[in-house]
Amino acid sequence: MWPRHVLTELIRNALAEDVGAGDVTTGAALRGNETGLARATAKAELVVAGIEVFGEVFRTLDPTLNFTGHRRDGEKAGEGDLLAEISGSLASILTAERVALNLLQRMCGIATLTRRYVDEIAGMRAKILDTRKTAPGLRILDKYAVRAGGGCNHRFALYDGVLIKDNHIAAAGGIAEAVRRVRGRVPHTFLIEVEVKNMAELEEALVAGADSVMLDNMGLSEMAAAVTRVGGKIPLEASGNITLERVREVASTGVDLISVGALTHSAAAADISLNVVQVKEREA
Amino acid sequence: MWPRHVLTELIRNALAEDVGAGDVTTGAALRGNETGLARATAKAELVVAGIEVFGEVFRTLDPTLNFTGHRRDGEKAGEGDLLAEISGSLASILTAERVALNLLQRMCGIATLTRRYVDEIAGMRAKILDTRKTAPGLRILDKYAVRAGGGCNHRFALYDGVLIKDNHIAAAGGIAEAVRRVRGRVPHTFLIEVEVKNMAELEEALVAGADSVMLDNMGLSEMAAAVTRVGGKIPLEASGNITLERVREVASTGVDLISVGALTHSAAAADISLNVVQVKEREA
Amino acid sequence: MWPRHVLTELIRNALAEDVGAGDVTTGAALRGNETGLARATAKAELVVAGIEVFGEVFRTLDPTLNFTGHRRDGEKAGEGDLLAEISGSLASILTAERVALNLLQRMCGIATLTRRYVDEIAGMRAKILDTRKTAPGLRILDKYAVRAGGGCNHRFALYDGVLIKDNHIAAAGGIAEAVRRVRGRVPHTFLIEVEVKNMAELEEALVAGADSVMLDNMGLSEMAAAVTRVGGKIPLEASGNITLERVREVASTGVDLISVGALTHSAAAADISLNVVQVKEREA
Amino acid sequence: MWPRHVLTELIRNALAEDVGAGDVTTGAALRGNETGLARATAKAELVVAGIEVFGEVFRTLDPTLNFTGHRRDGEKAGEGDLLAEISGSLASILTAERVALNLLQRMCGIATLTRRYVDEIAGMRAKILDTRKTAPGLRILDKYAVRAGGGCNHRFALYDGVLIKDNHIAAAGGIAEAVRRVRGRVPHTFLIEVEVKNMAELEEALVAGADSVMLDNMGLSEMAAAVTRVGGKIPLEASGNITLERVREVASTGVDLISVGALTHSAAAADISLNVVQVKEREA
Amino acid sequence: MWPRHVLTELIRNALAEDVGAGDVTTGAALRGNETGLARATAKAELVVAGIEVFGEVFRTLDPTLNFTGHRRDGEKAGEGDLLAEISGSLASILTAERVALNLLQRMCGIATLTRRYVDEIAGMRAKILDTRKTAPGLRILDKYAVRAGGGCNHRFALYDGVLIKDNHIAAAGGIAEAVRRVRGRVPHTFLIEVEVKNMAELEEALVAGADSVMLDNMGLSEMAAAVTRVGGKIPLEASGNITLERVREVASTGVDLISVGALTHSAAAADISLNVVQVKEREA
Amino acid sequence: MWPRHVLTELIRNALAEDVGAGDVTTGAALRGNETGLARATAKAELVVAGIEVFGEVFRTLDPTLNFTGHRRDGEKAGEGDLLAEISGSLASILTAERVALNLLQRMCGIATLTRRYVDEIAGMRAKILDTRKTAPGLRILDKYAVRAGGGCNHRFALYDGVLIKDNHIAAAGGIAEAVRRVRGRVPHTFLIEVEVKNMAELEEALVAGADSVMLDNMGLSEMAAAVTRVGGKIPLEASGNITLERVREVASTGVDLISVGALTHSAAAADISLNVVQVKEREA
Repeated sequence: MWPRHVLTELIRNALAEDVGAGDVTTGAALRGNETGLARATAKAELVVAGIEVFGEVFRTLDPTLNFTGHRRDGEKAGEGDLLAEISGSLASILTAERVALNLLQRMCGIATLTRRYVDEIAGMRAKILDTRKTAPGLRILDKYAVRAGGGCNHRFALYDGVLIKDNHIAAAGGIAEAVRRVRGRVPHTFLIEVEVKNMAELEEALVAGADSVMLDNMGLSEMAAAVTRVGGKIPLEASGNITLERVREVASTGVDLISVGALTHSAAAADISLNVVQVKEREA
Repeated sequence: MWPRHVLTELIRNALAEDVGAGDVTTGAALRGNETGLARATAKAELVVAGIEVFGEVFRTLDPTLNFTGHRRDGEKAGEGDLLAEISGSLASILTAERVALNLLQRMCGIATLTRRYVDEIAGMRAKILDTRKTAPGLRILDKYAVRAGGGCNHRFALYDGVLIKDNHIAAAGGIAEAVRRVRGRVPHTFLIEVEVKNMAELEEALVAGADSVMLDNMGLSEMAAAVTRVGGKIPLEASGNITLERVREVASTGVDLISVGALTHSAAAADISLNVVQVKEREA
Repeated sequence: MWPRHVLTELIRNALAEDVGAGDVTTGAALRGNETGLARATAKAELVVAGIEVFGEVFRTLDPTLNFTGHRRDGEKAGEGDLLAEISGSLASILTAERVALNLLQRMCGIATLTRRYVDEIAGMRAKILDTRKTAPGLRILDKYAVRAGGGCNHRFALYDGVLIKDNHIAAAGGIAEAVRRVRGRVPHTFLIEVEVKNMAELEEALVAGADSVMLDNMGLSEMAAAVTRVGGKIPLEASGNITLERVREVASTGVDLISVGALTHSAAAADISLNVVQVKEREA
Repeated sequence: MWPRHVLTELIRNALAEDVGAGDVTTGAALRGNETGLARATAKAELVVAGIEVFGEVFRTLDPTLNFTGHRRDGEKAGEGDLLAEISGSLASILTAERVALNLLQRMCGIATLTRRYVDEIAGMRAKILDTRKTAPGLRILDKYAVRAGGGCNHRFALYDGVLIKDNHIAAAGGIAEAVRRVRGRVPHTFLIEVEVKNMAELEEALVAGADSVMLDNMGLSEMAAAVTRVGGKIPLEASGNITLERVREVASTGVDLISVGALTHSAAAADISLNVVQVKEREA
Repeated sequence: MWPRHVLTELIRNALAEDVGAGDVTTGAALRGNETGLARATAKAELVVAGIEVFGEVFRTLDPTLNFTGHRRDGEKAGEGDLLAEISGSLASILTAERVALNLLQRMCGIATLTRRYVDEIAGMRAKILDTRKTAPGLRILDKYAVRAGGGCNHRFALYDGVLIKDNHIAAAGGIAEAVRRVRGRVPHTFLIEVEVKNMAELEEALVAGADSVMLDNMGLSEMAAAVTRVGGKIPLEASGNITLERVREVASTGVDLISVGALTHSAAAADISLNVVQVKEREA
Repeated sequence: MWPRHVLTELIRNALAEDVGAGDVTTGAALRGNETGLARATAKAELVVAGIEVFGEVFRTLDPTLNFTGHRRDGEKAGEGDLLAEISGSLASILTAERVALNLLQRMCGIATLTRRYVDEIAGMRAKILDTRKTAPGLRILDKYAVRAGGGCNHRFALYDGVLIKDNHIAAAGGIAEAVRRVRGRVPHTFLIEVEVKNMAELEEALVAGADSVMLDNMGLSEMAAAVTRVGGKIPLEASGNITLERVREVASTGVDLISVGALTHSAAAADISLNVVQVKEREA
């Protein structure tokens, strides 16, 4: 999914933010030798994403904690379903709890919303894509959650894919020149996607040799016309103002890809709770 | 608001995530000597938060960019209102755009949702509080946005406030013992808030000398009873399942504080666009 | 005590400072396969603090080293008493020795001095507090050592407690206004301590609703008057020029807290030596 | 003195420790637009060290602050003497104050103690040396302060000088073998110092070709005998238990160097205060 | 070329490696107030690359230094030609010199070797490509230098391009399955290059729909056959054992791309010297 | 050799550079549960250096990988000789492969070139030295590889040895003054090497008390004269333009040390391949 060290670093920063020089309450209210068992449970229907991330937060804070996932990413869970269990030092569990839940609830929230979009166009050819509209610092998790929800990833970042937008076109003086410049300068391993606003620009992009085209905020009939014009030779991506209400008719135009910023910038957190169900004191 | 270096580090990490070794498209499609003027505009009604953060992203990527904010944090903006302008190297503007917007849209989204809660209980004594349910790594911005929206901050993190929750109480063997331990171990500068689930626990907390009490998921009538019992001697905080629909009746119980996780974990991004309105090529 | 990673980072920085690209002498004088047993011994009477930190330095440099503490933090040790043993790679022991001792000697020095202050006022109601006058970068250790010596901690840093000092008062235009502003802006979980120089300011602080008051460099009789005036309603902290000679009479005034900068800024290092008592060569 | 970036990093870490996510009191009590002038003044006689470091703390927190040093490192200052002035944003001054003072007071304390040792042996040939017994993380400042006090530096760390101690000798099976190994393995730019406990070991060290010798905890007459034996061919360093009371008679033995751990591990902080002498509010 | 902060970080690490806690010689031999003018001069024919990087090293160590480049990257320089001038603090110039030269000489060495390959196939259709065989930590500079020398870049890293190699094929159970899996899982913005060893594998790759093919260590006649077979439909890359002696005949086969590991893993450093031509002492 | 953490950090940075947010090809073409055995083999004669570093790259990426070295550093290997084996997760092996090889091939290349220089002067008194002309960021590895090849290290960096060069001399106003200043300011553990260009400067250096002298770009007869003049009292180092062709006659002049920049700035990478020889799928 991602290199181990990348996740560790992300979690360390998150723990540093919340724990800092120490969890004052836990440090003062507990003796430190208590052990416990905690259960994470879904409080509403959701699609699971981030179970291993959730566990890794606890293990990063305290490698002696035991973690067991009871659902896999991509599975659905209903109200009351057990998602995971953590046991070991109670102080460690309580200190890590909030960061772990913040990540899990966000990831499940994204997966759950993604699944709704995917289900909405079930059986149609289009795929649901994410965007770069992720929470800064959390992109690897946000995009992973989209996949867990059944969506596909667009390029990860500015460094791994070419997307020529209106401003690049304006700066280069036209689609043809922009594509020409890019083709001459990027490694041969890069495809070139071009954003267009209307049929005229689509025509220019096709002539320029674009490898795929993003239809930016086009109307349904114009998108359908674009699909007809291109005839399946290159992929077409619908983008802009894609709501759950609208996604099915957008897919009906025959586009190959539908990118949805809301998946990662506007998903509500999934409702999940962590309850400590056993507490014991260890012998000193 | 926060130490300068904290924000710089956050922005550098965000830029590293999106830009990495370089913006392939901009690097290839532009000559590099183009300059431009870009305008950030609200595309729907929103409460502004993060204008300076927005500008700082551009300046962090390229200190030669000029930035002018046209709205102040906390102000409302309607569809089409100009929020800010950036001018200078077009390549720099295009490369920083997405990170800058991701932060601004998130912050405005939080401020806008917060304002709705605040407006909902306008004229009542209760204050709207945030929680620690923020996007990991972005807490300083999330909590700042809550203030811009008219809300108040709860403790920032585990290190700067004491909140004794059910699990701490279970570990200590009761509210009285938990409060006694904490009082004896934390600096005298800390207040002690205790979470209670019912009137019996509230009684225990009062006897133990809690400085404030969080009423966790209590019903309206029980909250009202708690308010009566306490008689204003210490602040009471309502918590759990606070929706826009319910917040006014919760406030009507007379509680002092109402904490709302949704402000930061479920706010939808505000709709804001950045448009390049001028492009020029500089002499070499 | 503190999150594991915080200590690890502190120790890594300390090792980087002393070891850098390598311990030239040990690397050249040893074969590398020698093992040894080393003993840390008190060379004068002291109060122990930092035994686990001491061990962690060795384990951070080389996780294969074995460490056994023979005293617990807070215990007294006399000349010749064994504090701890380390065994394993001799090269690792010799390379880590200085950093480990520098930390242990500093922490024991602070605990020992703290204990002297605490003993000086034994049986009286006042507590000995530390300050923020710690060695930059070592605050978690300095403040922990104070607790090991029997003292209590004041706020940890600027972020976790409010202390309104003369300059804040001057800027706000008076104690009343300063307290009012702070009360309105900080989370409800924060107490407000106000620094005063005389009885008039104390009166203002009380009227303004200060939660505790620091008596800054007041004379003994004035402190006694302050105690009488306040009548136990809020804690009073004596501060400024608190020497071992003076601490008992300061406590006699009836103040609740006595803060002593010298605990952390002027404690002499405790005298502790590390001796290698066995050396063997392992088979290659 | 040191590369700029090394000091910046040290100060950033120190500020992060004390300021973290923000100075709660200053943020709440001030409007933010106040400016001020602050003066650092000696409250007792001291030797100055760290004036530029002191200024750099303020500039690191806020580059718009103005700083003027009124004494140079190495100069003496008496009670009431002005050391430095800072002007600009009052909030910035108050937030940086404690870190700046913690560093300056520590450095002046070390310089002041060093000067006392140096003065004690004025006119004699021996030099006062520091050791590696510094506060972890602060070595560049501790050792600089020793120079400001008139002392000399021993090696900076394990990586820039060879000192063969008893444990290295034990591991190698004798002084001759230890020196032989080191000579064969370290770059030709390194000198070899050997620690000896008595005249017999001194003899071995001389035969082995040591470039300098540390006399570890030797008595005065034995040190004198060592000086006679060596006859000035290589430098001799006295080490161990060097107090202000004893240093003059140690120097009288004729040794070239006297190393004193106390300079950096047991110097009391110098007494210095920072007072804000003017406060104004800027126009918004 | 690359985000400013990426280069700054690289240079800071390089300076930390060489300068560490300080340049002992310069710190001791100079007063510190000397200024100087230094000139970087080619001592043999070379292709310039890295002039701005060279300057940035000096400015990173000391922002007050002035730097003027006298050649642009990509230009040729002959023996004795002036490349750049630096003026300002002599101590800063001397301390930064080695790191600056190490980077410049490496980059010019790579550009010079690249140019020889490019010149060798002048007028032919093939392009010279680099590989990921760069010095760890220096890839952005190594690959930039290839472009300065007239070569083209292959993918930058494992994250921005797909290259299915023999081991991926073995793991997937064949070229068809490997391509199928990758096509289904990577964003639509990625092209798929497949490495093949012979004509049979080439056939499989074409059937599977590879977007480009790397001919790994094929003989000249087999490469020519591959070119004929593909007929220009997708790019073919020759790879493995490409020497200056062989590159022209490889290009003659008609391949589109020729990748050469030696450009970055075996280029000799270019011969460049830095001479201080003026020294002055500033007034204190 | 070097502190464990230093190497870990270097490898993490190298992996971050190449792997970033993930190995797209391996992540998509493999299931993730495949295991494999890979063998590193010499493809031409070489001197081994870096076998443990090679293994550490794999273990850093994935601690569950097994690594066995089959040659020791400093040994020769011929074409086809097995150098090391790695087994475990195939995905991890493929992702780490390039970074591991880049480091190993560079280190073996340096060791192999060093051995050629060393062999060239076999039986003569001179030693082959490296310089600070290493790849920025890789100095610990470059210098280690020189030792593996039979060479010796010069000072590691600017902080651990004194070398007074022409510019220092110019700034100080002469050799005598430069040596005097340095002697007075650096710790007694530092030797002083002086760079000279001719016999007159050599004379000055001897009078000034230099501990060793570097003969910079002198002719053979002048070097021989220098050797005669010095008569073995201090080491002489030949430097500048030392090629394999010339090194033996330089050694014949009787100099003690010959420093060669090419060892680290111009060594060609050794030819080594990694082949996966077994692939299995684990049960889920």
